[in-house]
Amino acid sequence: MPLSPDQIAEIEAARATPRLTLRAVSEGMEAQLYRAQPVLDHGFVRVIDYMGDDAAIVQAARVSYGAGTKHVQNDEGLIRYLMRHWHSTPFEMCEIKLHVKLPVFVARQWIRHRTANVNEYSARYSILDREFYIPAPDQLAAQSTVNNQGRGAVLAGEEAARVLALLKSDAGQMYDHYEAMLSQDGQQGLARELARMNLPMNIYTQWYWKVDLHNLFHFLRLRADAHAQYEIRVYAEAIARLVADWVPLAFHAFEDYRMGGATLSARAIDCVKRMLKGETVTQETSGMSKGEWREFQTLLD
Amino acid sequence: MPLSPDQIAEIEAARATPRLTLRAVSEGMEAQLYRAQPVLDHGFVRVIDYMGDDAAIVQAARVSYGAGTKHVQNDEGLIRYLMRHWHSTPFEMCEIKLHVKLPVFVARQWIRHRTANVNEYSARYSILDREFYIPAPDQLAAQSTVNNQGRGAVLAGEEAARVLALLKSDAGQMYDHYEAMLSQDGQQGLARELARMNLPMNIYTQWYWKVDLHNLFHFLRLRADAHAQYEIRVYAEAIARLVADWVPLAFHAFEDYRMGGATLSARAIDCVKRMLKGETVTQETSGMSKGEWREFQTLLD
Amino acid sequence: MPLSPDQIAEIEAARATPRLTLRAVSEGMEAQLYRAQPVLDHGFVRVIDYMGDDAAIVQAARVSYGAGTKHVQNDEGLIRYLMRHWHSTPFEMCEIKLHVKLPVFVARQWIRHRTANVNEYSARYSILDREFYIPAPDQLAAQSTVNNQGRGAVLAGEEAARVLALLKSDAGQMYDHYEAMLSQDGQQGLARELARMNLPMNIYTQWYWKVDLHNLFHFLRLRADAHAQYEIRVYAEAIARLVADWVPLAFHAFEDYRMGGATLSARAIDCVKRMLKGETVTQETSGMSKGEWREFQTLLD
Amino acid sequence: MPLSPDQIAEIEAARATPRLTLRAVSEGMEAQLYRAQPVLDHGFVRVIDYMGDDAAIVQAARVSYGAGTKHVQNDEGLIRYLMRHWHSTPFEMCEIKLHVKLPVFVARQWIRHRTANVNEYSARYSILDREFYIPAPDQLAAQSTVNNQGRGAVLAGEEAARVLALLKSDAGQMYDHYEAMLSQDGQQGLARELARMNLPMNIYTQWYWKVDLHNLFHFLRLRADAHAQYEIRVYAEAIARLVADWVPLAFHAFEDYRMGGATLSARAIDCVKRMLKGETVTQETSGMSKGEWREFQTLLD
Repeated sequence: MPLSPDQIAEIEAARATPRLTLRAVSEGMEAQLYRAQPVLDHGFVRVIDYMGDDAAIVQAARVSYGAGTKHVQNDEGLIRYLMRHWHSTPFEMCEIKLHVKLPVFVARQWIRHRTANVNEYSARYSILDREFYIPAPDQLAAQSTVNNQGRGAVLAGEEAARVLALLKSDAGQMYDHYEAMLSQDGQQGLARELARMNLPMNIYTQWYWKVDLHNLFHFLRLRADAHAQYEIRVYAEAIARLVADWVPLAFHAFEDYRMGGATLSARAIDCVKRMLKGETVTQETSGMSKGEWREFQTLLD
Repeated sequence: MPLSPDQIAEIEAARATPRLTLRAVSEGMEAQLYRAQPVLDHGFVRVIDYMGDDAAIVQAARVSYGAGTKHVQNDEGLIRYLMRHWHSTPFEMCEIKLHVKLPVFVARQWIRHRTANVNEYSARYSILDREFYIPAPDQLAAQSTVNNQGRGAVLAGEEAARVLALLKSDAGQMYDHYEAMLSQDGQQGLARELARMNLPMNIYTQWYWKVDLHNLFHFLRLRADAHAQYEIRVYAEAIARLVADWVPLAFHAFEDYRMGGATLSARAIDCVKRMLKGETVTQETSGMSKGEWREFQTLLD
Repeated sequence: MPLSPDQIAEIEAARATPRLTLRAVSEGMEAQLYRAQPVLDHGFVRVIDYMGDDAAIVQAARVSYGAGTKHVQNDEGLIRYLMRHWHSTPFEMCEIKLHVKLPVFVARQWIRHRTANVNEYSARYSILDREFYIPAPDQLAAQSTVNNQGRGAVLAGEEAARVLALLKSDAGQMYDHYEAMLSQDGQQGLARELARMNLPMNIYTQWYWKVDLHNLFHFLRLRADAHAQYEIRVYAEAIARLVADWVPLAFHAFEDYRMGGATLSARAIDCVKRMLKGETVTQETSGMSKGEWREFQTLLD
Repeated sequence: MPLSPDQIAEIEAARATPRLTLRAVSEGMEAQLYRAQPVLDHGFVRVIDYMGDDAAIVQAARVSYGAGTKHVQNDEGLIRYLMRHWHSTPFEMCEIKLHVKLPVFVARQWIRHRTANVNEYSARYSILDREFYIPAPDQLAAQSTVNNQGRGAVLAGEEAARVLALLKSDAGQMYDHYEAMLSQDGQQGLARELARMNLPMNIYTQWYWKVDLHNLFHFLRLRADAHAQYEIRVYAEAIARLVADWVPLAFHAFEDYRMGGATLSARAIDCVKRMLKGETVTQETSGMSKGEWREFQTLLD
């Protein structure tokens, strides 16, 4: 169970007492507020706060473009126009604050997105809980044979059993030793800031993460992508569902232009033009490398 | 009058319809929301949205420090501790979105604070209004004779009258010519993106500006300071009053540790210690340059 | 003449004294170092310093990907792979520092690129020179009739003459008044920080601008684009030529994948697939708005 | 030995072939270039590249302040003035690129400094080496009894021996299991991106880290401070020694105004003034909390 009883009580208390505000309110987000969306075996994502909605994006764009934007007939059209032309500043006018519980090796990828604010639980200051990520059997994948940075088939049989047993017993043993080193029972007890170094990277940590909508879309494009590691992708997908409830117009524009879209090189555009004129283009005549050509074919299949 | 009738109507409509939210609410800020605080002759600052309150800062800090923070007895003590020890990330968990109308030469200073989101009115896209900053007589100051970057005595008599007359007539003439170049009456009309280059830098522009509380404090420390130019300082002071209503505990800590505080060099600390032991320290024996010594004396006077 | 005699002497002195270094050296950039590339009527761009070269990008990528990158046969292939897959961090490992002289209204667009370091000439501290941007006759364009944010035909005849005369006489008059207000001859003299507000936005300023190669590419994609305003585009084009000399492999990958490339939406990709199968797709059957469809047609023409 | 034979050969090759450049050269830094400074048991810091020197800081400041800076008599005086008055942009004009090998738990603290560029070795893509940080006996400290976030006395005797034995045997075992899970000998072999989760946080990683001098000073102020964890502080100290060789004037100003300096609150300044007038101030009459008063006393002792 990812949430402690204290956390559940805190969520229920927070949800029990609506208050009046004059600010922009997103009903879709109010329904989600504070509630934990489970991710992986012990993780979660929950919304702590948000600023703005679809109308706030439009309002900010109209400040920039003045009366000139009035010819765009509706909010959806303007939001799609902004997304298509990479006008990112109106999307920066929305902000979200999430509470996330996640394994350390996922946190290490996530933190590389620098344009965000973070408060992480400090294992220098406090003691981490005994919670580790152990992959579900269908996620216990072999190394890909075609991609250094990817997964192949799911492990089966004895090999899978061996791996799971190792992950579980090592995590348990490391945590036992962590506690043993910290203990002040009959000994001084090692400093927390040192003892933590013995913990494996599948231990769970947690943080508050605050980011604007433009940078969140960038995060989602990279991390909800099929090439992202499964363990961060499930977090990105959970967040994407929240964003769809929060700013539905912006999210649909994002899906069409970013998640479902693709960037073609000058060479690729040239190939498409030649193909539309009836020419049979091959990798040799495309000017592309084998890798580029393979990706190009996948896109148009 | 800084606000257009459309803007006033929009403010009243927005303030007329409170809605329910489960988010953190700052009553002090709700009272201010959307209302324009006049600044200079045609400018204003108004809050469009905010995220978080004093409790949100404490909540974020407790995520970081875990159970360890429980020995701090109250929110005020913890907020003061965080400010004193430059723990900036909990303050980043609050965010504010402002609508500001300001002269272009002020906007040019302001934008140098990079860690913020901005949507500015586009004079490439739309036509600017005929509104210029003309200093009030008590702000028409001479060049400082001691500081390249400062003001001296207020101009008086004929010189003041001459300056005011020039500023007013030049602004009017430039705007007349701007309109004449843009006009499509009997001519093609110059492109907006070109015509704007003829406008002086005291014309007003406007923008939405969104920033987190940590970076806002940094802005206020530099721009509400006595060394800042008057025309940006009055904006910083107006914002400071809003922040005092929004997050009073954090603001008071900021006033004590940043605005009212000072950084002493190693040499200056050494001098204080020697002085407390009864030694008479002079500039010559202080190890400081004349400029440093003068600033040190001012601090302790 | 954009450079002062002092500046020319400084450039010649700096170029006269090569020194030994163990750092990565780009011969293409050494040939450019300190030399001013003229832009517009009084502006320039010149390289003050640079860090890294094409090999430095490859070296940084190999730190990330370890031995795994060895199967990429050469530097060009790896650089193209990184660009194609939006692996931006290796490009961030190169840095350039430019000295730019530019009109204020161009500077106002430029500064919106926040991920850069800037030192601008301070008109609060010092007195600006009497230099203004006056468009060449072939750049004196009418407002576009189809695009709020663009130029139409070039003005001709009397209208062009009228506009040029206004721009020149207004600039001269404003500068005369700037000097008159600052003068301490028989009067106190207005503070510089105030007098500058009377100057028009086509006056030239200058700054040092330092940026990493990834963020510079982002700047070039937006500002060397056909939709950018001509007056900033010529700066971007001058910088692009410098970058081509500095990191030729990275620059060519950028040209192919970014400048010459295009992003297709999910709907657009679907249309391309249908068209390649022989279907005749129209705006009505495309699912795109009129604006999107027009842009899609332009891309494939 | 922290460097591999390949790395040593690469360093010697790079240092063997000086080339001519017209750029600013820091002799102090050239002597250091590429050479690894050992840190902890297997880590190092080495300079890969740098941009600028003390003169470059002065040059950037003179662009900003124009002729007005000429009254500052020398570079050292100007650099001290800039540091004292928090004029940070000229320091941003210098840049350094480091190659760092460090334990993962140190990397997790380090990466929180967001204004920097990073390329880290990818354990998703490649296999990590069998190298772990094991504290030296004099760094095996107990948990502080007064500070949640600190160390107390050094552990001794059997407790120390127990801790060291656990750290060593756990690291070895985890690495054995990492290899066993990855092995493709008679089995498929677990994906690298999964196997890495079983590694403890004292394993070494490495990265290229590029940062400007202003942000580096901020890093050093926090991480070379006595309150920083020892394991990151030794890296900060090694970097500080490099910076002292690179930009000696800036570094000495930094030492005086930042490292050796202190920020006093408004209350603290008031207390100093009262004490200098002969008043005996106690915690009760100071207006400070117990914690503040203790820090204040420590500063003036």
